[in-house]
Amino acid sequence: MIGYGFMGAAHSQGWRVAPRFFDLPAEPQMQVVVGRHPGAVASAAAKWGWEESATDWREVIARDDIDVVDIVTPGDTHAEIAIAALDAGKHVLCEKPLANTVDEAEAMADAAERAAARGIRSMVGFTYRRVPAATFARDLVAAGRIGEIRQVRAAYLQDWLIDAESPLTWRLQKERAGSGSLGDIGAHAVDLSEYITGLKLASVSGVLDTLVTERPLLGETIGLSGTASAERGAVTVDDVALFTGRYESGALGTFEATRFATGRKNALRVEVSGSLGAVSFDLERMNELQFYDATLPPLEQGFRTIYVTEHDHPYLAPWWPAGHMLGYEHGFSHQVKDLVEAIVDGTQPRPSFADGLHVQRVLDAVERSSNAGSAWTATGD
Amino acid sequence: MIGYGFMGAAHSQGWRVAPRFFDLPAEPQMQVVVGRHPGAVASAAAKWGWEESATDWREVIARDDIDVVDIVTPGDTHAEIAIAALDAGKHVLCEKPLANTVDEAEAMADAAERAAARGIRSMVGFTYRRVPAATFARDLVAAGRIGEIRQVRAAYLQDWLIDAESPLTWRLQKERAGSGSLGDIGAHAVDLSEYITGLKLASVSGVLDTLVTERPLLGETIGLSGTASAERGAVTVDDVALFTGRYESGALGTFEATRFATGRKNALRVEVSGSLGAVSFDLERMNELQFYDATLPPLEQGFRTIYVTEHDHPYLAPWWPAGHMLGYEHGFSHQVKDLVEAIVDGTQPRPSFADGLHVQRVLDAVERSSNAGSAWTATGD
Amino acid sequence: MIGYGFMGAAHSQGWRVAPRFFDLPAEPQMQVVVGRHPGAVASAAAKWGWEESATDWREVIARDDIDVVDIVTPGDTHAEIAIAALDAGKHVLCEKPLANTVDEAEAMADAAERAAARGIRSMVGFTYRRVPAATFARDLVAAGRIGEIRQVRAAYLQDWLIDAESPLTWRLQKERAGSGSLGDIGAHAVDLSEYITGLKLASVSGVLDTLVTERPLLGETIGLSGTASAERGAVTVDDVALFTGRYESGALGTFEATRFATGRKNALRVEVSGSLGAVSFDLERMNELQFYDATLPPLEQGFRTIYVTEHDHPYLAPWWPAGHMLGYEHGFSHQVKDLVEAIVDGTQPRPSFADGLHVQRVLDAVERSSNAGSAWTATGD
Amino acid sequence: MIGYGFMGAAHSQGWRVAPRFFDLPAEPQMQVVVGRHPGAVASAAAKWGWEESATDWREVIARDDIDVVDIVTPGDTHAEIAIAALDAGKHVLCEKPLANTVDEAEAMADAAERAAARGIRSMVGFTYRRVPAATFARDLVAAGRIGEIRQVRAAYLQDWLIDAESPLTWRLQKERAGSGSLGDIGAHAVDLSEYITGLKLASVSGVLDTLVTERPLLGETIGLSGTASAERGAVTVDDVALFTGRYESGALGTFEATRFATGRKNALRVEVSGSLGAVSFDLERMNELQFYDATLPPLEQGFRTIYVTEHDHPYLAPWWPAGHMLGYEHGFSHQVKDLVEAIVDGTQPRPSFADGLHVQRVLDAVERSSNAGSAWTATGD
Repeated sequence: MIGYGFMGAAHSQGWRVAPRFFDLPAEPQMQVVVGRHPGAVASAAAKWGWEESATDWREVIARDDIDVVDIVTPGDTHAEIAIAALDAGKHVLCEKPLANTVDEAEAMADAAERAAARGIRSMVGFTYRRVPAATFARDLVAAGRIGEIRQVRAAYLQDWLIDAESPLTWRLQKERAGSGSLGDIGAHAVDLSEYITGLKLASVSGVLDTLVTERPLLGETIGLSGTASAERGAVTVDDVALFTGRYESGALGTFEATRFATGRKNALRVEVSGSLGAVSFDLERMNELQFYDATLPPLEQGFRTIYVTEHDHPYLAPWWPAGHMLGYEHGFSHQVKDLVEAIVDGTQPRPSFADGLHVQRVLDAVERSSNAGSAWTATGD
Repeated sequence: MIGYGFMGAAHSQGWRVAPRFFDLPAEPQMQVVVGRHPGAVASAAAKWGWEESATDWREVIARDDIDVVDIVTPGDTHAEIAIAALDAGKHVLCEKPLANTVDEAEAMADAAERAAARGIRSMVGFTYRRVPAATFARDLVAAGRIGEIRQVRAAYLQDWLIDAESPLTWRLQKERAGSGSLGDIGAHAVDLSEYITGLKLASVSGVLDTLVTERPLLGETIGLSGTASAERGAVTVDDVALFTGRYESGALGTFEATRFATGRKNALRVEVSGSLGAVSFDLERMNELQFYDATLPPLEQGFRTIYVTEHDHPYLAPWWPAGHMLGYEHGFSHQVKDLVEAIVDGTQPRPSFADGLHVQRVLDAVERSSNAGSAWTATGD
Repeated sequence: MIGYGFMGAAHSQGWRVAPRFFDLPAEPQMQVVVGRHPGAVASAAAKWGWEESATDWREVIARDDIDVVDIVTPGDTHAEIAIAALDAGKHVLCEKPLANTVDEAEAMADAAERAAARGIRSMVGFTYRRVPAATFARDLVAAGRIGEIRQVRAAYLQDWLIDAESPLTWRLQKERAGSGSLGDIGAHAVDLSEYITGLKLASVSGVLDTLVTERPLLGETIGLSGTASAERGAVTVDDVALFTGRYESGALGTFEATRFATGRKNALRVEVSGSLGAVSFDLERMNELQFYDATLPPLEQGFRTIYVTEHDHPYLAPWWPAGHMLGYEHGFSHQVKDLVEAIVDGTQPRPSFADGLHVQRVLDAVERSSNAGSAWTATGD
Repeated sequence: MIGYGFMGAAHSQGWRVAPRFFDLPAEPQMQVVVGRHPGAVASAAAKWGWEESATDWREVIARDDIDVVDIVTPGDTHAEIAIAALDAGKHVLCEKPLANTVDEAEAMADAAERAAARGIRSMVGFTYRRVPAATFARDLVAAGRIGEIRQVRAAYLQDWLIDAESPLTWRLQKERAGSGSLGDIGAHAVDLSEYITGLKLASVSGVLDTLVTERPLLGETIGLSGTASAERGAVTVDDVALFTGRYESGALGTFEATRFATGRKNALRVEVSGSLGAVSFDLERMNELQFYDATLPPLEQGFRTIYVTEHDHPYLAPWWPAGHMLGYEHGFSHQVKDLVEAIVDGTQPRPSFADGLHVQRVLDAVERSSNAGSAWTATGD
């Protein structure tokens, strides 16, 4: 595993727990975690249960005893590491976003395609696809239960920027974060809605905005946070992204990614309206799926709250009895399961790097549309 | 009252019930209802409790014993009737939309202004402002309880068109309906969100679409509905309207008006995100307001479901004890109350014709933006 | 109409509105309202739209031009008035509870039976049966959609007594109120649950309690409320009633009636669990019914929120389009409709006085059980 | 760890994960798992990550390298193992219920008290206390935020027995299961409600019932389930338990434990009504707490949905960012954390064996009350 931040903790939990619950066709060994600072990465290795730590990722991907490289570093480093690892014959799991630019993402998708020809697998980490209720939404849609899709409403609502005096952290500076709400959380809304619907966005019209343009600079940095100083600096990423999309099928989607939705903590929402029904998912109630079946007798129709915790629901079999809830990190175990199975079976795991590239193109098209006065812009697939 | 369709029933109920519950400063007399077909309008008069019926609205507005003219006819007739009534010195209540075109709406607003100088009052019927929970949302916002407004999410979701085989009624034909989802329900989303926030939309970027472009022609007409024939005709109004708006303050709003939101029957929703809190209203749970107070201790924050049924909540005093719910038609009693009070007090009732004109300009700007590839378009106020 | 308090307002609204929306087989005339205080009752007549007022109910029920007597006086007067009216050949609508004692209720049921033999109808005013969602719950149960009934959970939760310093009003004094939470709101829970299930309680085990036993005496009385004085008096009615019931079928029910359910304003809740499904109703969301269909595919089961506002739902046809909500007072229009139809059709309206007597017997059995240490007590039907 | 069923999996997950997220003062080693069948227990050891397996628990508790014994066997074996382990100087974690009888539970509580005098700790596994939202409910109550407690509504609703043809498994036979819904899930309702309120039940009146008294016998057993045969056998445990309790403070509680609540999968609910507010928890939405603050301005009061996922909420600090949900098994990590800290700190972990004994006495009192016609029965503490 390259990197060891918040995502490193989540991925480590996935690697540790998945083999205990799922009958994997191969047993993962948590061998080595890589980071720049020797002391910090050694601590991380101990804390998250990796055998060794290292500081040079190039050495690690050259090792014969390493089969899989899991990349959880910041987005601007993904391309270099992933391409090198794939070229070195390692299977790669890369955290989202695939890359910070479309160019990098294209290079990665190319590398993935070349590697696949040699049996080397790659996958991008949109784990919300593996929340059982979201997976089950996809199953219902794929089975035709909502008929022809007419509209999609997708949003990722957070509120951690509502205070205009909250300080200017690195996440609000373009040169370091690469992107703002669009790339960070909008990417999830795009991927999850395309996953559930099976549709692909062909063009978009949107606007990126920075509602609070100046914030106090950080004074002394203390850990990940810090104290505000009296000086102010410019917020250089978008904190709100709003766009409308047209799918190849002609259906319409609305998208919102914001850090200003007061009271909404982590509301990744996807509602799909079809000719025969609808599904509605909200990550804040991640064990539930709302399903509306318009083929029932008219007087009996209504949104149904399905607790997606039954033994036969997606991914549920090895966990707990019906009605016992799963949490955020279970998606990372499901990701490990699917990746290991795909590697052993020799199949393409999804979302592929090509899927990740598509999301990147959508985000890029939104940015270009915003710069062009919200003109409709093709995603360019 | 001119006209006697569905809205006529609702307005009649308002005129009949308001004086029983509110201590009005004047006692309305339900004198005469006007319609083109003598038999039908006489039946309506009997059914809805009007003293007389008539077929010529010009004669009626010329009568000395008529003080108030309530217009519930289709939108294309509003301007002529309202202007004539105002010029004749009658107070006017005009059902929304104010008119079918901006030009007509401007003429009406001019007439209203002229009339106001002579003490003649006019008001447009956006009754959802008078759902107590919506009014209370406005009160909280106006009191500064949610701080500076950052974003608005407004939608009016219905689903009566999801079946592509449902027939081509007059509401789907531009020459008769004037407008589709945008004018019919989008107008409510615009007005209610501006009412709650006190903000005014300065420009918009949007798209109108017709997702099902052909539908079976009606065969034999039976009452308001009819049977489908084998032939098909073109749907000539929008059935989905999606747009983003910029308020004069710089805040952003997203808007959706659709008849394809499967499972959503009458979901007029407005959520306002501010620097200190949020309010969220849904007409499908019209007695409730969701309020988030971001000034409470962080561990105790959450959306609060307020049942807006207390004696001291807006409009509630004369109704029932706390916890006893109001319904759709109560807004029409509240409208009568406010209109009668304004007439007697000599104040301008709201929403005024100028307010109605503004909504019309927003809708017009959306249509022009849609025709211009979603280019940002000023509302032109 | 005899009496003119809060219930008088609601009944008047029913009589006024029902004929406007329903095609009644006879046209009710709101003739005369009766009360003890000439000035007050005359005001009430004017306010609520009755032709005349009177102070002697005996004279009124002797009048030839009176066909129906609607009794909305306190419970201790119901028996005398209702029996006299029935004996005088008047159809009677009597507000719940039927009476304050089982003896009175029996006399009334006897009188009703005698009157029925002469074509004279009587009905008791449990209007919550006529909330469309509750009626629809009954329809689903009656159609076998939830299978064999196993359990009922019924509660009526209010919170207006949580403050121990709220004053000792007449509703807390047995000699004036007759009964506390059990008779006032528990009666609704019993009637509504038996209506929805079609089951009859055979025996009960329960406890009545007074959680706050002393409260400040009222000082000067101002309108319906008043100011607290420094002295205290004893609360002599129950403020909480908890009981378990066994239906004749063997099914079990739990019941709670309380004025101490902090935050619950008017939560009359009935959930019925059956072998094939469940229905769950809550008066605080009176336009919705929760329905669980256990015959659907197991992975797709969930409680479904049905908005009971479709044209073909019970009582809905003459009201508004789907998704437009009804409120508290609509039940009174539905009551008028059903009563007038039953009178004209010559059928027995429900709930009958016999139904009201049964509820009274259940309440009486609860009280006796409470006095006997919660021993199981037959309802004695 | 003695035993390795469903609870063994959950406990193993707790032991494995807790040290990765919490900074424990001692590092647990997952040494040996014990079971009767050598092959099965060896498999379990491998699957759940224990170093060794063994078949004789007496030998294991005699080992010097074992410090903590975690008992997850059926209830009838708890007493013997726990007492032996405590006497051998091992800290003991014992899954609930503490025992199948009050006598056994008393012996265990005695052994725990003796052991505590020697610094040996013991704890019973009511893990739902460690769902953060439940812990936070307790915190609010303990801080006086809901004032004086008036009423408690507690229920544990499941529905896996609604089908009368579902077979007669061992859980429905008293000689094997020891108890039915009362002991299995009612115990949780009692413990959790006493934990949240800090109150103790003094007496109870209740009824146990078996709604479906005969079920098909199991034919061939396949894994944990099996096929139904044509023969039928008697259900010998309660499948519904309903009771009312009086706390020492005088407050009242209602309790329901049932496997017939159609559509309710795992709804452990506790609502506490106080003079200043209320808290309401539902395990089916385990990351949320409903809080009603009756000290807020009256027009603004409402139940607030608090997502108990903030960094400073109980147990949350080492997990994920706000808005990222926890699941069922996290309670087992929290349990390990609290137990290890108590052992190292030399304090009494809660719930203690004395707490477990009290729950047992409450259950026993309910059973005796049921046998005595629901007569009020002291819990005998």
